[in-house]
Amino acid sequence: MRFPRRRQVRRERAERLMGELAAEFAGTLILMVIGLGVVAQVVAGGIGGHDSIAWTWGLAVTLGVYVAGRISGAHLNPSVTLALAAFGDFPWRKVLPYSLAQTLGAFAAALLVRWNYTEVLSRFDPGHTIKSQGVFSTLPGNGSLPVHLWGGFRDQVIGTAILLFLVLAVTDLRNISPAANVAPVVIGLIVVAIGMAWGTDAGYAINPARDLGPRLASFLTGYRTAFRDQYGELYFWVPIVAPPIGGLIGAWLYKVLIGRYLPGPTEPDAVIEQDPLPEREKV
Amino acid sequence: MRFPRRRQVRRERAERLMGELAAEFAGTLILMVIGLGVVAQVVAGGIGGHDSIAWTWGLAVTLGVYVAGRISGAHLNPSVTLALAAFGDFPWRKVLPYSLAQTLGAFAAALLVRWNYTEVLSRFDPGHTIKSQGVFSTLPGNGSLPVHLWGGFRDQVIGTAILLFLVLAVTDLRNISPAANVAPVVIGLIVVAIGMAWGTDAGYAINPARDLGPRLASFLTGYRTAFRDQYGELYFWVPIVAPPIGGLIGAWLYKVLIGRYLPGPTEPDAVIEQDPLPEREKV
Amino acid sequence: MRFPRRRQVRRERAERLMGELAAEFAGTLILMVIGLGVVAQVVAGGIGGHDSIAWTWGLAVTLGVYVAGRISGAHLNPSVTLALAAFGDFPWRKVLPYSLAQTLGAFAAALLVRWNYTEVLSRFDPGHTIKSQGVFSTLPGNGSLPVHLWGGFRDQVIGTAILLFLVLAVTDLRNISPAANVAPVVIGLIVVAIGMAWGTDAGYAINPARDLGPRLASFLTGYRTAFRDQYGELYFWVPIVAPPIGGLIGAWLYKVLIGRYLPGPTEPDAVIEQDPLPEREKV
Amino acid sequence: MRFPRRRQVRRERAERLMGELAAEFAGTLILMVIGLGVVAQVVAGGIGGHDSIAWTWGLAVTLGVYVAGRISGAHLNPSVTLALAAFGDFPWRKVLPYSLAQTLGAFAAALLVRWNYTEVLSRFDPGHTIKSQGVFSTLPGNGSLPVHLWGGFRDQVIGTAILLFLVLAVTDLRNISPAANVAPVVIGLIVVAIGMAWGTDAGYAINPARDLGPRLASFLTGYRTAFRDQYGELYFWVPIVAPPIGGLIGAWLYKVLIGRYLPGPTEPDAVIEQDPLPEREKV
Repeated sequence: MRFPRRRQVRRERAERLMGELAAEFAGTLILMVIGLGVVAQVVAGGIGGHDSIAWTWGLAVTLGVYVAGRISGAHLNPSVTLALAAFGDFPWRKVLPYSLAQTLGAFAAALLVRWNYTEVLSRFDPGHTIKSQGVFSTLPGNGSLPVHLWGGFRDQVIGTAILLFLVLAVTDLRNISPAANVAPVVIGLIVVAIGMAWGTDAGYAINPARDLGPRLASFLTGYRTAFRDQYGELYFWVPIVAPPIGGLIGAWLYKVLIGRYLPGPTEPDAVIEQDPLPEREKV
Repeated sequence: MRFPRRRQVRRERAERLMGELAAEFAGTLILMVIGLGVVAQVVAGGIGGHDSIAWTWGLAVTLGVYVAGRISGAHLNPSVTLALAAFGDFPWRKVLPYSLAQTLGAFAAALLVRWNYTEVLSRFDPGHTIKSQGVFSTLPGNGSLPVHLWGGFRDQVIGTAILLFLVLAVTDLRNISPAANVAPVVIGLIVVAIGMAWGTDAGYAINPARDLGPRLASFLTGYRTAFRDQYGELYFWVPIVAPPIGGLIGAWLYKVLIGRYLPGPTEPDAVIEQDPLPEREKV
Repeated sequence: MRFPRRRQVRRERAERLMGELAAEFAGTLILMVIGLGVVAQVVAGGIGGHDSIAWTWGLAVTLGVYVAGRISGAHLNPSVTLALAAFGDFPWRKVLPYSLAQTLGAFAAALLVRWNYTEVLSRFDPGHTIKSQGVFSTLPGNGSLPVHLWGGFRDQVIGTAILLFLVLAVTDLRNISPAANVAPVVIGLIVVAIGMAWGTDAGYAINPARDLGPRLASFLTGYRTAFRDQYGELYFWVPIVAPPIGGLIGAWLYKVLIGRYLPGPTEPDAVIEQDPLPEREKV
Repeated sequence: MRFPRRRQVRRERAERLMGELAAEFAGTLILMVIGLGVVAQVVAGGIGGHDSIAWTWGLAVTLGVYVAGRISGAHLNPSVTLALAAFGDFPWRKVLPYSLAQTLGAFAAALLVRWNYTEVLSRFDPGHTIKSQGVFSTLPGNGSLPVHLWGGFRDQVIGTAILLFLVLAVTDLRNISPAANVAPVVIGLIVVAIGMAWGTDAGYAINPARDLGPRLASFLTGYRTAFRDQYGELYFWVPIVAPPIGGLIGAWLYKVLIGRYLPGPTEPDAVIEQDPLPEREKV
């Protein structure tokens, strides 16, 4: 009689994972529908400016976290998923599914933005060239400043290290993590800060899903040079490879400089089925 | 002796509805007095810019929700009222009264803005033409970009779908809904995000009352072409018809992607007399 | 033996009032040191713009309320003090002392700003004329738009009505008033909204102390035409007389449209020694 | 047998101090990595403007406080450390170690920003002159307005007095200090307000560590005139000497105008091992 039971457990697990993937998909969809939307509005529509973009990416993160927080922990970013797994706060077996759901959400959002801004993009950049590529994916030096591939790589490592360091600082319940379920707002502010201060060299992708998904979507809808930068170099791999490295460094620095000095019970090494954000609400 | 009792119940119900309609009227009045005010200040007064408008519409929503939240649940938007009713969270019989109170609040606010900005509007646009129509109601492509009626329709469906998806995500108590009565601030941020990212194609009315009420008020106070867009097309029906459709889609997507995976007790199918926001405060 | 007791009560009362006046002085000082500072920075220093001013006046209010909230209820504005007294929520005998302390705080802040910005003001406007008067006090149409004295009067009545309506909505504990002591942030957002949307016609003084104190300070430090507007009219009385009228209207509208429909115990008619803000913290 | 015990206590004390210094280092590192980053992005990268800088320094403070708050109380500023010590809320023996850790954090952050913005700084200011000095350290009149050394001194005294007055007002648990661990957000808003209103005369260093650390780092990496202002005067000592004086004045004014009127138990004169921020969370 134990087999049926085991099968039921497996089914529940699968259903649970399905919910988590739906949440990561929906959260990243919202993140990107807002995030890509504001770049389209500013760059192609000519409405708003740099600050509109920086603030609105922060709002996009905040709202995406509110969407997915309870169910999946709202990673919305493979760098986050990987760093949590590397330090024992997330099961390795879910890293790939999460990352795929995130990339798919970003891909779907890019199609929606591409569709809604058809007329405006066509007017602004009829050939769908690198001129409006930045609406979908990042470029070194934001496409105009004298930064090349490896400068972008360096920048993405540091930027994502800042992201993970701060996300852990702000969601660690042993620290002064914001209660009353307002942590998502502060997490959004982290991204505003990074966009304001670390957006010059590579457009702060700091998230492989955020960059690859829309790059694919733009490629499939007429952007032939989507995978290259303004110098003609193959650039698409930089915002895929550099952020996870930076994320690991940032998370490690947090453990070394802050985490190990924090009072309170040490977190178990393998909090497998629960992510930090939903926990917040118990407070 | 039962008849008098029944009559009393009916009277209490009527009084309760009266309070709800007063709250929807007052909340939408505040929403629009701020929202139309900032467009007047920027467009006709020449003070501030696009970001002032996007942020201040968000503040307007936040403050309108604080005004009406306890009494009526602060829909302030027929798309919200309709979507809640369609999914069993609001009684159908109140949908029309709520919508009328909202439209009336927006109408009254428009008259107030029209009056206070008399001199400035007359200096900026002496003929009260389409040049300053945008102070009161929306236009495709914000009146200058190459978007037409059906582009605006598409945009309004998507924009209102985003709105409802996020409003449900943020007010669903089974999710990580902000506690301590700060949800209205986050609801305002939703509208900031939509204005920043989905305002290019149709000025993000995403609310029939917000558009129709002031359009009527402007028509009655000298704007002869209030019901047409910059191409001479009858446009006024787009921000009335498209948002409710988008709202239904967004609410349905929330139920499918997030709602059904959320833990905790399922909400009863017919929470008739109580709206989600006031409930928050019990937490 | 009862006389000594009575004397002690009187002494305690006097000391309590002294604390409240110190708090109103300090809170308004902070409000104005930030508020006048940002106008000096933008207008005379040429750093920042309209939005800097609107946001920073909101921050100024937020921070002033945090300073004085516990001790005096943080009115920081004679219109607020008067409206609370008129509706039985504040003792009449304290209205004048409070108003004087507020005006004195604004006066002291103006001297500090005048001193610190000496060089910058002298460079920008060597004659200390109406060109930089707006750093200290308000003008109709912000000094350049075609609004005259009575347009400013109308605007100040409406603007202050919005202020009081919203301050009551946000601090009424029977409504969804923000808890966890974050109400001051939302009160600041009210002033941001008014500045963004109702600042065109008269520079949103909406506070007699905010306008009169600095106007006096500027007059005493070289601004000979401080009491007149750009048309040469005596204008100084408008931001003194209109806001209290508007405040009464706004407070009354709140009671009629929202207050009387709110559930929960009716507030006693004469909460004499306690103001709404400090109460918040008990929640 | 008492000696070993004493030794253990000493070891625990040393470890505790080590954690506090790591937290002050990490918190100030984050503060400066964001704060210097935004100036580099705006000045050298040409992306964003004055408001980006003012808001982002506030975010930088907020995030730095979230990093270090629990462990060290998140002073992040020798003026704060000194003022707390002077009024008995912090042990004197830790003032120098804290100040050094803060300066070191700012120094390390400056090196990181210097490295990441190498290309952009070289393009903008090939000679690494005073033209881009402002990315790292402050100048009187922001380098262009007619303010000299002593004007900057005066400004830094007043600015830091405002800072300490408000930090104490907002973190004093007897006042209406924000609960739910959102105080760091409001502390960030204090710095936004100061930057918006008191940044004209001397670039609001209001923090010796913030100014000296990056000034040293810029000097060591090619900025030969780092210690002088645009008039050739030795200026570097102003943002070191003036802020602590201002901090003492501000803290004293808070005690006189607000602190002594606050109800509740008087704080003990020597809360030695505990700082105000971590305490917040108990509420």
